[in-house]
This record gives sequence, C-alpha cells and structure tokens, in this order.
Amino acid sequence: MMPSRGSARIEAFSDGVFAIAITLLVLEIRVPEVEAGGRLLDVLPQIVPSVIAYATSFIVIGAFWTNHHETFRYIERSDTTFLALNVLYLMCIAFIPFSAALLARYLGQPGNDTVAMVAYTGVLILCSVAFNGLWWYASSGGRLTDASVGTETIRRHTRWVRTGLVLAIPAIVLAFVSVPLVIALYAVVFLVYFVPRVGQLKAKPHRGERRASRP
Amino acid sequence: MMPSRGSARIEAFSDGVFAIAITLLVLEIRVPEVEAGGRLLDVLPQIVPSVIAYATSFIVIGAFWTNHHETFRYIERSDTTFLALNVLYLMCIAFIPFSAALLARYLGQPGNDTVAMVAYTGVLILCSVAFNGLWWYASSGGRLTDASVGTETIRRHTRWVRTGLVLAIPAIVLAFVSVPLVIALYAVVFLVYFVPRVGQLKAKPHRGERRASRP
Amino acid sequence: MMPSRGSARIEAFSDGVFAIAITLLVLEIRVPEVEAGGRLLDVLPQIVPSVIAYATSFIVIGAFWTNHHETFRYIERSDTTFLALNVLYLMCIAFIPFSAALLARYLGQPGNDTVAMVAYTGVLILCSVAFNGLWWYASSGGRLTDASVGTETIRRHTRWVRTGLVLAIPAIVLAFVSVPLVIALYAVVFLVYFVPRVGQLKAKPHRGERRASRP
Amino acid sequence: MMPSRGSARIEAFSDGVFAIAITLLVLEIRVPEVEAGGRLLDVLPQIVPSVIAYATSFIVIGAFWTNHHETFRYIERSDTTFLALNVLYLMCIAFIPFSAALLARYLGQPGNDTVAMVAYTGVLILCSVAFNGLWWYASSGGRLTDASVGTETIRRHTRWVRTGLVLAIPAIVLAFVSVPLVIALYAVVFLVYFVPRVGQLKAKPHRGERRASRP
Repeated sequence: MMPSRGSARIEAFSDGVFAIAITLLVLEIRVPEVEAGGRLLDVLPQIVPSVIAYATSFIVIGAFWTNHHETFRYIERSDTTFLALNVLYLMCIAFIPFSAALLARYLGQPGNDTVAMVAYTGVLILCSVAFNGLWWYASSGGRLTDASVGTETIRRHTRWVRTGLVLAIPAIVLAFVSVPLVIALYAVVFLVYFVPRVGQLKAKPHRGERRASRP
Repeated sequence: MMPSRGSARIEAFSDGVFAIAITLLVLEIRVPEVEAGGRLLDVLPQIVPSVIAYATSFIVIGAFWTNHHETFRYIERSDTTFLALNVLYLMCIAFIPFSAALLARYLGQPGNDTVAMVAYTGVLILCSVAFNGLWWYASSGGRLTDASVGTETIRRHTRWVRTGLVLAIPAIVLAFVSVPLVIALYAVVFLVYFVPRVGQLKAKPHRGERRASRP
Repeated sequence: MMPSRGSARIEAFSDGVFAIAITLLVLEIRVPEVEAGGRLLDVLPQIVPSVIAYATSFIVIGAFWTNHHETFRYIERSDTTFLALNVLYLMCIAFIPFSAALLARYLGQPGNDTVAMVAYTGVLILCSVAFNGLWWYASSGGRLTDASVGTETIRRHTRWVRTGLVLAIPAIVLAFVSVPLVIALYAVVFLVYFVPRVGQLKAKPHRGERRASRP
Repeated sequence: MMPSRGSARIEAFSDGVFAIAITLLVLEIRVPEVEAGGRLLDVLPQIVPSVIAYATSFIVIGAFWTNHHETFRYIERSDTTFLALNVLYLMCIAFIPFSAALLARYLGQPGNDTVAMVAYTGVLILCSVAFNGLWWYASSGGRLTDASVGTETIRRHTRWVRTGLVLAIPAIVLAFVSVPLVIALYAVVFLVYFVPRVGQLKAKPHRGERRASRP
C-alpha cells in the first residue's frame, strides 16, 4: 500500500546514467603511440575511427536523453514496475559505450565492420524497444501520465517514440551494404530530428515555466 | 549544536554514486580481439560471461537504488552519524563493479566461478547489512523518520529491508551447487520484487505529489 | 506544437557531463612502475607532465563550466534545436580528457609536444565555437533569453563569450614557439578571468536570491 | 556588474565531482589473474592492499564531502572568485583516486610505502589547505555567509575546518614510522569525527526543514 510517487528522483538518477554513459565514450579513444624517433603527426590519423564512433554515439545518446526528457514531461506519477522498466531501459543505454568501442575497433575492416555495426545498431534497437515498453506502460489507460495532457498529444508522442524504432530497420539492412552509409544515416536522422521543429518551438515566452519544470 | 538537516543533498550525492557505479559496470566488458585474418563473429561470443555479469549487477544495483529511494521517503532529518552510515553503505555499493568484473572473469571456470560468486554475493550481503544498519539507525525510536508516517508503515518497511538480507543466505549456499542457478535466482528475485506490486501501486493520481517529492 | 520548456533539467544534465569530464582527467595519470629493487622516489617525477595536463585541463573545464553556469542565468526557455546545440557543445567538452591525455603523453618531446598542444588548443577552440553558437542561437532576437534582462547586459555577455574564442588564436601561434609558454598563458588567463571581478562581485547580500537560482 | 548568485548549482556540480571521485576509487582494484590450472582462492588475497586504500580513501572523501556540505549551509551567495577557489579545491579532491592507486600499488613495500603514504597525505593536506582558503574567503567579513548565522557559529566552524589541517601533520610524521599506523589513524579520526556528535544531533524534529535545505 505504498503511495504512488512523483518522478523527480527517477529523472535525476536517469540523467546521471545518461551523463556518465555519454562522457565515458571518450575513454575508448586511445592516445596513439609513436615509435622511437617517430612523429605524432603521422600516427594521429589513427584516431579517426574512434572519433567517428565517439561523435555518432554522443549524438545518439544525446537524442535518447532528449526523448527521455520529453517523455517525462507527460509523466506525473511512478510505481515500482515503472522504476524496473526504467532500470532495464538504462541498462541498454549504459551498454552503448561498449558497442561504440567495438565499432571504433573494427571500423574500416571489411566484413568485421558489418558485424560491429549490426551489433551497434542492435543495441540501439534494444534501447528503443525498452523505451517503447516504458512509454507504453506509463501511457496505456493514462496509468502514470498527467491527466491534463490531451489524448491527442499522448497519441502523437506515441507515434514519435515508435518512429525511432522503425528507423532502425533500414540501418540494420544498410550495414550489410555500407557501414559509412549507416553512419551518414545517423547524422541525417539527427538533423531531421532536431532542425524542422525549430519553427514550431520558437514559440512565445512562457513565463513562470521554469519553475514548473522542476517543482 | 549544529542544527539537524534535511536529506535532499544526501539523496543527490547518493544518486550520483549509484548512477556512476551502475554505469561503470560497462567498463568491465572488453572489446574482443580478432587475430590477423580472423572473424569478429567468431570471437564475439567471448563477451557472454561479461554481459551476464553486467546485466545481473545492473539489476542488483538498480534494486538497491530503488530501496534507497523508497527508504528516504520516510526520512525527514539527518545527522552526522547518519551521513557516516550512508557513506559506509555507499562504500559497499561502489564496490559492486569490482565484484562484477571478478565474476565476469571467472564465470565458466569450474571451482573458480564458485569462489567468484561467493565473493560477489558476499559484497551484496555487506551492502544489505549496511543498509539495514542505516535504516535501523534512522528508524529506531523515530530518530530521523517523518512523524506523520504510521508505525505500521515503518514496521512493514523494516521487514521489507530485512528480506533482502535473508534472501542472500540461499544464494551463498547455491553458489556451491551451481553458479548459473544463483544468477537465475537473482533474475527471479528481480521479477518477484517488481512485478507483484503493480496492482497495489497503480493507485489513483496524487495531484501535487511531484512537488512534494523534491521540496 | 510541443510547448517550450524551462532549462533546469538541461542544466542538471550538462552539470553531470562537466563533472564527469573534469573528474575523468585523473584517470590519465598512471601510477609509475618501479623496477625490482628500485625506489619510488626516483620514478615519481615521471608524473609531472601528466599533473601539468591535469591541472591545466581542470582549470579550463572549470572555466567553461563557470561560463555555462553564467549563461544559463540569462536563459529562460529551451527548444529542441537548443538541446541539440547543447549536446554538440558537450560533445566538445567531453573530448577534453582525451586531448589532455595526448598532451600529457607528448609533453617534453620536442616537435610532438607542439602537435599535441595544437590539437589540445584546437579542441578548446571547437568548444568555444560551439558555445558561441549556443549563445547566439539563444540570444538573437531574444529567442530564449529572459525578457527582464536588459539588452546592454546581453550585449556585454556576448562580448564576454566571444573573448574566450579570441584568446585561443595566440595560443595556437604560441604552441609553435614554446609549449610551456602556452600552459603559462592558460594559467594567466585563469587569473585574469577570475581575480579582477572580485571587487564588483563582493556586492551586497541579495536575500532570497538562493531560492531564485533553483526554482 | 554581474549580480551575486546563489550557491545551489555550485553545490550540484561539486556533489557530482565528489560522487565521481569516490566511485572511481574502485577502478584501481584490479581483478587478480590466475595462472593456468591455478586457483582463484590463492590469488584473491592480492587485492588486500587495494581494498585498504579503497576503504581509507572512500572514508576520507566522504568526510571531505560532509564538511563541504556542512559549510555550504552557512553560505548564501557566491561570486566568481569563490567559484574559482571551489574549482581549485575540487582539483585536489579529484586527485585522490590517483594517490589512492599509488598507495595501493606500493603498500607493503618497505620504503616505497612511506613515499606513497607521504604523497597520499600530502594530497589530503592540499585538499585541506584549499578548503580552508575557500572558507576563509567566504566567511571573512561575512563576505558570502548568511547574515542570520551568529558569529559564534561561524567562529566554531572555522576552528572545525582548521582541525582537519592540523591533524594531517602527525599523519605525515607517522608515515616515516609505520604506514599501517597512519591508516589506523585515519580510521580513528573517522570514528572520532562522526561518533561523539550523535548526542548533540539527535535533536528534535525540525519541520519544514527539508524544504529549506534545497530551495
């Protein structure tokens, strides 16, 4: 008969996991070693695959964080099952630094790079499935959502959450054709995701809003 | 004569330690190395023990976090001894990434896997003992708990906190029989812990509650 | 048609990334190894380049955090593009631990130290460019800034944000002359940045102000 | 002419650095390697020095965090110099994981363990000096402190802050006599620091206090 709870501390804990996972990405970039008498400038380009994996993964985790952030604006309560689903979701997110390191290690090795990219995209799909489950649990029947949010808004957000999952299918297929194309796809998705909504969101000031976002 | 204090910053600091410990788990999963001309697909299964240790430990730390979160809802004040006990508790939690790495390294090596699992479960028992001590200190005589919480609720929570400790005994014994069974046990505990309370918690909306959770 | 949002959770997430990036710096300092029968005191000075890179980078990230902190005091709303620009900015910040490790590894190797320092300063310039972009997006036409802040204050802050970028040019040039001089330059900038404003800020108490800073 | 600021976001950032530094400590404990056919139980005791360094450092950083936490209860405003001093202080704190790794590596090697312990204690002294500077800057002339806190309380807190520094002198001297004794000393200090104040702080409930601690 525990009372239901607000979601502030879950958000803080999740933000911590996101922030750490995204920052740990840098640890997979190794300082290149110069042989005796060698020049750093000659070996520095070795870090390129790692930097690509770093940038891609940073953007991906950043986008997942943005989605999580957005979603919690509609959630008003939490329960133990929701906490558990959120932990499972974070388990997928916190795995990304490993799959990024795998990708960085095998980028540029034909055949192995496809395996690494399929594994990488597979982890993103797991993240997306877990996130869809989390949102489904929270929103179905208005279980944990804010009753003042209209059903149309909820339905639109559901479609939005599902979009990320749908986009992953071509990425898996494309990995067998060309790994660089998959990376380009992620960059395009990032732009498509963030840019076209500028107009909508420029919006008018919303005074007192800042208070509301962190009660 | 320092005044007593609220617990918000202790929660924030503890959340930080939990979030970091849980995210560091991924660092123990090493990228497998392919020999010249070898195939990544052939060596990728090497990460299975690490992934099992990762998933188990993520769930375990997630459950400890949930318990900590739950417990702090009943705590209203803090004092220096409470801070110290919380530091000792966090010291046990932050040790889990090491015991997870140990488990991942020796999973599948008969004999050594038992030693690793006993050590792993031993650390969880330490965490549980420390947590029981923390709760006992806070709740005995209503020292730091919220006076508006009924004694029956406190007593029920005490039993709940003790349950985790009691469950660890069979885990230690089972480690001598079969290490995979212990892992299955942890998975079952996770399900038992989170699922059956869904009904109870679906509850009704609790307006204004979010504000209360983070004053 | 998503409503615009406050910036509190963006600040919390950014603070997390800053705090992790600044603390990860210590991981690039390796414990020196003593040969059999050797003395620790003899090999301990090996850590000097790493400690210099650590201290410089700690101060640099600390200064970037201070600027970010300062800037968000003028920002009242956020939108998706702002979130994306902030993610790109954090991507640059979180890269600093790598460039610090690179600098530590090659400090004291003539020629290679110049390359490492140019790369290091290049990353700082990227951070600064991204930060200027972030501020430009937020402030142009008062898009996301607090309307109650005077235009003169905004203009002064814009100049301030640009100063960091301008200072990086001589650092790049100086790297070709003398790497230690660049490090000295960073130390001087730190002093110039923080000290002369003491007088201004000693200010009078501002009661109730603390509440306002975290609504 | 920037206005003075509250201290909430500085606390959040500092808490992040403390939480990360304290949790990174576990990374210096390496999983022991078993030779072919060897037994884990035989090599597991190799981790003892690392565990001692871990536990000591966890307690030490925990105590520093407690002090920082305590101190910020008296601080009401901040300025840029205060931010800079806090960054310098955190630079010392974030260095502790390195000195802990150094101590773990050389504990039990006569001669080298003294050097490692002197370095370790030296870092703690730097932390303490930086912390005294921070408090002196904030409290002298009531520059940043809460005017409603009595001067006697401020004076008592100043003595308290200074105590940590004074205690470090015997630790340095003792390191030349016996390294285990220094570790015992740190454990005793921890007990002395936390235990005797229980009585004082048991206090009475302080309703509404929790709200006040995080405005």
